[in-house]
Amino acid sequence: MPTASTRVPQQERSRATQARLLEATVDCLVEHGWSGTTTTVVAARAGVSRGAQLHHYPTRTALVTAAVVHLTERRAAELRAEADALPAGPRRLDRVVDLLAAAFTGPLFVAALELWVAARTDAELRAALLPLEARVGREMHRLTVELLGVDERRPGVREAVQATLDLLRGLGVANLLSDDSARRATLLHAWKRQLATLLTPADAPPGSTPADRPPGSERR
Amino acid sequence: MPTASTRVPQQERSRATQARLLEATVDCLVEHGWSGTTTTVVAARAGVSRGAQLHHYPTRTALVTAAVVHLTERRAAELRAEADALPAGPRRLDRVVDLLAAAFTGPLFVAALELWVAARTDAELRAALLPLEARVGREMHRLTVELLGVDERRPGVREAVQATLDLLRGLGVANLLSDDSARRATLLHAWKRQLATLLTPADAPPGSTPADRPPGSERR
Repeated sequence: MPTASTRVPQQERSRATQARLLEATVDCLVEHGWSGTTTTVVAARAGVSRGAQLHHYPTRTALVTAAVVHLTERRAAELRAEADALPAGPRRLDRVVDLLAAAFTGPLFVAALELWVAARTDAELRAALLPLEARVGREMHRLTVELLGVDERRPGVREAVQATLDLLRGLGVANLLSDDSARRATLLHAWKRQLATLLTPADAPPGSTPADRPPGSERR
Repeated sequence: MPTASTRVPQQERSRATQARLLEATVDCLVEHGWSGTTTTVVAARAGVSRGAQLHHYPTRTALVTAAVVHLTERRAAELRAEADALPAGPRRLDRVVDLLAAAFTGPLFVAALELWVAARTDAELRAALLPLEARVGREMHRLTVELLGVDERRPGVREAVQATLDLLRGLGVANLLSDDSARRATLLHAWKRQLATLLTPADAPPGSTPADRPPGSERR
């Protein structure tokens, strides 16, 4: 029987091992795609024994779904921290859109897209990802509402937030094979103006945008 | 030496064989994904001999890039015909967006996405698709401008058309694993109103939209 003092470091070691495996999974998906992301390759990349990998994540599906959950949560926390550091003021909305656009062109988006496309023709992966898709979608939406500091009960706000996320997903795909950043910057410049108009209540003073207010001030 | 009368049917047979191979390629990509789309599987599905397949498309990359070009051209022609059949009037813009949305959730989009994602980690496929990506992107943009009957020289029009296509690409990805049509319909309803505003010249009579005019009337 392990004593309390040995159990705690062991739990910490387990968590560290899991984190290494999940990070290695995303790295593998980005570098080699779904077909090149086997549990063996991931274990080797993470520097974790095959036995330990099988203990924590017995299947490839278990490994990749855990990786999406873990990395989505980590990325959401990073986005919140980055957004908290943004100054209030008229450029806040622009900076929030830039942060989200960076997420949709980053490694986690690429890794998730590899899985989503593979799941289309892989029944086991599809069954595992479907509930995750709904959850990640809801969390991304809630996070965006929070970062923009808008009130979804106002007409049109929900659709404007959704359109922003769908647009950013489309821009993420457009960036897969070639650097689309110049076109994206021009397009997002126009989108930010539109979004500011869509999110600004009709009775707000001219020139003010929702993101001028501190984040969370309109949270439900 | 073949005579003129035998040459013509042979050319026709070649074209028919090519078309069968290219349609079978897209069907295979939709059904089995990139990894399941081998030249052998495609030849069998098309009912074409292995020799004939190798004669027309010697490599898997040659086959799938030809399929994207062929199907994109065919789909563009179908979209033009469908749009020509639309009545002029205030609902025209809405119907054009619906036609485009159907294209971005249809088999050709799914097949292309399989290839784009595979090309990220396959150097040969990537080299073949990169010039194609630019060309398909330009043609899709030109087609959308034409169907909407708008003048790209007017400020904001180019960005509005691009945002529409990027949004539709994002919606296509959101529809990969589950039927997203209800959410998409609500979102597009709002987007159509926004697009009508963005595309309507400031000096136009109230309530008129660019798509009220017959298609091509503003073509350069």
